[in-house]
Amino acid sequence: MSSAPVTSGTALQAFAAELYPICRSITGAGVRKTLRLINNRIALDWHEVPSGTKVLDWEVPLEWNIEDAWVSDADGRRVVDFNAHNLHILSYSEPVRAVLSLAELKPRLHSMPAHEDWIPYRTSYYRRQWGFCMRHREMAQLLPGKYEVVVDSSLAPGSLTYAECVLPGRTRDEVLFFTHICHPSLANDNTSGMAIATALAAWIAGAPRRYSYRLVFAPGTIGSLCWLQRNQQRLGRIRHGLVLGLLADPAPFTYKRSRRGDCEIDHLVEYVTHAIDPQTRVIPFEPYGYDERQLCSPGFNLPVGRLTRSVNDGYAEYHSSADNLALISAGRLEQSLEACKRVVEVLESNRRYINLAPKGEPRLGKRGLYGAVGGRSPADRERAMLWVLNQSDGSASLLDIAQRSGLGFPAISLAADELEKARLLRAADHTGPARNAAASAPRKLPPSQSRKKAQVRSTRRKRPDLRSTRRGK
Amino acid sequence: MSSAPVTSGTALQAFAAELYPICRSITGAGVRKTLRLINNRIALDWHEVPSGTKVLDWEVPLEWNIEDAWVSDADGRRVVDFNAHNLHILSYSEPVRAVLSLAELKPRLHSMPAHEDWIPYRTSYYRRQWGFCMRHREMAQLLPGKYEVVVDSSLAPGSLTYAECVLPGRTRDEVLFFTHICHPSLANDNTSGMAIATALAAWIAGAPRRYSYRLVFAPGTIGSLCWLQRNQQRLGRIRHGLVLGLLADPAPFTYKRSRRGDCEIDHLVEYVTHAIDPQTRVIPFEPYGYDERQLCSPGFNLPVGRLTRSVNDGYAEYHSSADNLALISAGRLEQSLEACKRVVEVLESNRRYINLAPKGEPRLGKRGLYGAVGGRSPADRERAMLWVLNQSDGSASLLDIAQRSGLGFPAISLAADELEKARLLRAADHTGPARNAAASAPRKLPPSQSRKKAQVRSTRRKRPDLRSTRRGK
Amino acid sequence: MSSAPVTSGTALQAFAAELYPICRSITGAGVRKTLRLINNRIALDWHEVPSGTKVLDWEVPLEWNIEDAWVSDADGRRVVDFNAHNLHILSYSEPVRAVLSLAELKPRLHSMPAHEDWIPYRTSYYRRQWGFCMRHREMAQLLPGKYEVVVDSSLAPGSLTYAECVLPGRTRDEVLFFTHICHPSLANDNTSGMAIATALAAWIAGAPRRYSYRLVFAPGTIGSLCWLQRNQQRLGRIRHGLVLGLLADPAPFTYKRSRRGDCEIDHLVEYVTHAIDPQTRVIPFEPYGYDERQLCSPGFNLPVGRLTRSVNDGYAEYHSSADNLALISAGRLEQSLEACKRVVEVLESNRRYINLAPKGEPRLGKRGLYGAVGGRSPADRERAMLWVLNQSDGSASLLDIAQRSGLGFPAISLAADELEKARLLRAADHTGPARNAAASAPRKLPPSQSRKKAQVRSTRRKRPDLRSTRRGK
Repeated sequence: MSSAPVTSGTALQAFAAELYPICRSITGAGVRKTLRLINNRIALDWHEVPSGTKVLDWEVPLEWNIEDAWVSDADGRRVVDFNAHNLHILSYSEPVRAVLSLAELKPRLHSMPAHEDWIPYRTSYYRRQWGFCMRHREMAQLLPGKYEVVVDSSLAPGSLTYAECVLPGRTRDEVLFFTHICHPSLANDNTSGMAIATALAAWIAGAPRRYSYRLVFAPGTIGSLCWLQRNQQRLGRIRHGLVLGLLADPAPFTYKRSRRGDCEIDHLVEYVTHAIDPQTRVIPFEPYGYDERQLCSPGFNLPVGRLTRSVNDGYAEYHSSADNLALISAGRLEQSLEACKRVVEVLESNRRYINLAPKGEPRLGKRGLYGAVGGRSPADRERAMLWVLNQSDGSASLLDIAQRSGLGFPAISLAADELEKARLLRAADHTGPARNAAASAPRKLPPSQSRKKAQVRSTRRKRPDLRSTRRGK
Repeated sequence: MSSAPVTSGTALQAFAAELYPICRSITGAGVRKTLRLINNRIALDWHEVPSGTKVLDWEVPLEWNIEDAWVSDADGRRVVDFNAHNLHILSYSEPVRAVLSLAELKPRLHSMPAHEDWIPYRTSYYRRQWGFCMRHREMAQLLPGKYEVVVDSSLAPGSLTYAECVLPGRTRDEVLFFTHICHPSLANDNTSGMAIATALAAWIAGAPRRYSYRLVFAPGTIGSLCWLQRNQQRLGRIRHGLVLGLLADPAPFTYKRSRRGDCEIDHLVEYVTHAIDPQTRVIPFEPYGYDERQLCSPGFNLPVGRLTRSVNDGYAEYHSSADNLALISAGRLEQSLEACKRVVEVLESNRRYINLAPKGEPRLGKRGLYGAVGGRSPADRERAMLWVLNQSDGSASLLDIAQRSGLGFPAISLAADELEKARLLRAADHTGPARNAAASAPRKLPPSQSRKKAQVRSTRRKRPDLRSTRRGK
Repeated sequence: MSSAPVTSGTALQAFAAELYPICRSITGAGVRKTLRLINNRIALDWHEVPSGTKVLDWEVPLEWNIEDAWVSDADGRRVVDFNAHNLHILSYSEPVRAVLSLAELKPRLHSMPAHEDWIPYRTSYYRRQWGFCMRHREMAQLLPGKYEVVVDSSLAPGSLTYAECVLPGRTRDEVLFFTHICHPSLANDNTSGMAIATALAAWIAGAPRRYSYRLVFAPGTIGSLCWLQRNQQRLGRIRHGLVLGLLADPAPFTYKRSRRGDCEIDHLVEYVTHAIDPQTRVIPFEPYGYDERQLCSPGFNLPVGRLTRSVNDGYAEYHSSADNLALISAGRLEQSLEACKRVVEVLESNRRYINLAPKGEPRLGKRGLYGAVGGRSPADRERAMLWVLNQSDGSASLLDIAQRSGLGFPAISLAADELEKARLLRAADHTGPARNAAASAPRKLPPSQSRKKAQVRSTRRKRPDLRSTRRGK
């Protein structure tokens, strides 16, 4: 996958900054604007699910849009103003226009007493109400008196929007990436996830691949439930998955295991992230967080883990106005994208093989795979070949072998390449050689997917990728 | 089970003191007197197994009773006197009346050189002999000369006695408690076990229950073998079991695992005792100790662990006159009973459930189970519900979920209650709701068991429980 | 096996010294001379595999023999002389007679820069070339000029030689010992292995036994491949195996697990060697080393571990002239042999049993197996019997029980003996009583094996064993 575009941290940060000001929620114009920005970079399949649609145990809510909102005092001074910050409005606030005393107003106001200068992020998607979020310091200064309250919002039949970038590979086995797109003006949570998932899709699209990839951009919870409901028949194709989010704060990586706890994706992401940063934390599954809550519910139980830096509710600025562009950095965005790319690379290469000469060691020397003078210890290249041959009974993956041998995945993967070329190995999964097999890919794809793939490619030709964007500056 | 009587440590200690002076052995009047005292508190089913009965590889021995026994010197002074302490006689000593030199007498005398002032406890159930146990200091002072020896005992056809308290529940699945009743004048070993098993039975009888309970009071080894032989056809009903003994010495709890090593009872007692005292020790199964030796022999291999404080032979006073009422305390008796009650409570509640809305999370908010304003982290109550829903695929018990989540069994159990009421869960074991189901119990019991249950209840009405006893003082 | 000959470390060292000067390679006269010396001590079945024979993925090479070889300078002085040390010649060097400049000669010379005074051991079995190995210090002193090079060797059709000592037991289940015999003038690697395997065979031959034993003496790699190819139909009989080598250097034991990693041989050798030396290291399988590479290749995957002291390439003197007789010691040879004997003893005794009175404990007292006075803790002998009875459901081996109980294999094995005699146990594997069953052995052996066994015995009568050899000095 070396021919794919390089995306710098600066480009990722620029895209995050572009996404940051949009007032997103689980439905409405903000989500669509966000997806259009993403669609400028990668080809998206767009989905609208009408309000009222039954989705598993849930129902798609009315669509919420907002024009303006404020609280003004007796002097007409706006003491809370939606125009100043998206977080000032309780997300999904119903429209209101009223005059209230301070005592009547207070129960509608949300603040963070522990951080007096931060505006909290609060929502009320399913209980109809209105409210404002504000700095605790400012709330404490409100004087008794009359206040005018205006929420110029609408809650009306419409639809929930999500989109996915589908990148067919040589097989129909899928790798799923999932990121939430419903948070307004929170930088780490989750402009970082959206920027990285977008760049990752562009990078994956740039090279032939064994797996098909599906990158879903959806509102949290109700969005993933919509996706799950609509894709129930095809979930069996998902071999590995990763929820992405919170990928630019200063914390080291946190990998949260799938509910199953010992999937290939679990071992693989642990391996890749530890190789990049030994401080990576690995935590067991728990049923809160992001869309792994839905993807790993017992009725689906998909092999899906989650990659973040901090965890939800795990940093002071979480769900507040302090989760802003100053909290995130180009370097960390780039490192996070690098981790995702490495995950893809190792997934692509992490085959199981059958040793075709399993009785004794095959004679490597006559195939030019072994040093000519014996008596010395084998070099790492030869050790890697011996490991791959010895372990390749179809049960151990190359990553398993890398970890048992301590020789590292690149050395083991290279050895498998050489042995496969020497016809000493064959892949146990019958999907053709692991690499350089782009030519055979079209044969394996059904027509509709082939067309989609072509579309992706033309998309990439027609549209600027992140690197181009950066250069254009 | 909140309506059941509270038994204080003082009451437990008073009952232990009542049991302490009785000269028990594996057969005879002492055992029957002991069981009558227990039967004053709880309704017992009484079993007599005649001498000579073949019991698995064993045979019920002749019944042993003793009136008096002594060794007197040439001056007629009793240098060893059974009336002074039950332990002075080698248990199961055959009758004798003889005059011996000190040299002839010595081989018949047992002492503890390391503890000169303690009388050891020794037995000879199956090899016919006689002997005395005495303080080493006194034995060392015996002067050469003639000694008169009298053992006024009888070994005659009779029977072995054991009893059980059977408390039927809504299902025929049984929980077994087992305690040995054959030791004379040893306080920790085992008036503590008898007092606690008695109070536990009274407490269990006071509330409706899912499981049936069977508390067996039997002489060690031959008594449990009799019980096993007579109950072979029904052993399959035993879901969990616990041998009780040595529950009042100063050591923290010791839980000895079942032979299987990973039964529900193993995890559960470990959890409960650690919650009460973090110093609790857990030890693997080994084939000596109390009646777990028989219950966990390979031909039965029951899911039975053992709860003690010190272990057999694990404290200096073990099997000596120093294991007296001063060694045990009301506080430790009460704490031990508390642990047993908690085991019962957790067993009763430790169901496995099926999530009835397993695809994605069900919408808790519309059922009133979730806070109205989102964006904040879920409170513990909500976390507990998410954990129960996520894990309830029929394989994980509530205790498993409590341990995985770190949220504690009470929180998890309460969440399961709420979710079951909201029809989001059903028990995986089809025995009806876990709680509040007393009304349906009679339907499920066969007539004979229903009668027994009624008997237990009337018993409890007619007879004073331990609390009443205490108050009466 | 107490009647078998005792072999002292001194005798082992004397035999190693006898083997040391021989110029061995993977074929040729040195191998045959080595096997004749071994055959003087134990009866060997001799195998010659002709050059050109296809062996799995390999082919038996031409036979190599060497008469003389040297490099002489312009003055006719031999600067490298095969007569001075076998290691001076690159093993399998083709014949050559030429005059070269120093520059032309240099690529043919091998040295060890890190150890200037040691001659390295190098080979070129499968790439036809010639070369010399020499001290780095001497190589550095070579002056420019002309050098005469002579290698008076032959590479001609012949055969590869290996041999095995087959010692039939009461069953056809086999224990395999494997040692490499292809190294010239390297003392630890592997005169130590050859001396110990020879003495071990003599010792095993001296007593009746449950298993059949097969001790293979073969050139490394191609020799074990020949053996594997020729024995493919009988590999299923191999229940346990051990590769032996490097058994006399100063390091403590290293046990390398089988590829399967949890075979009986793995647990057993770990137990035995730790009991002899707590500093024993246990390492996981890896696919380089000695003939476990072939025996544990995925197509065979035999239950074979490896016992050495240092590991291959694990000591400074490895594959150099410093691996000489001064590196090895009589004491370590004797201790290594002792470990091998203990492995055999524990293998012979390590049965699985069925408790014939599995319901409850059988009454040991009436069978004379238990102390007469109760109340005291059971002595170790009684504990061992309780452990064996409790665990003997056919799944646990005596070694498993020894390790669970902490009581040691001898105590557990003795308890099993006593219980088997008391008819409380029977072996789970239906091969008759574990011990003292020599009388029944001939019945179980097919005629050909019986003859072989007779041959072994007569061999042992006719030939001196190692002890006799030693006495003869």
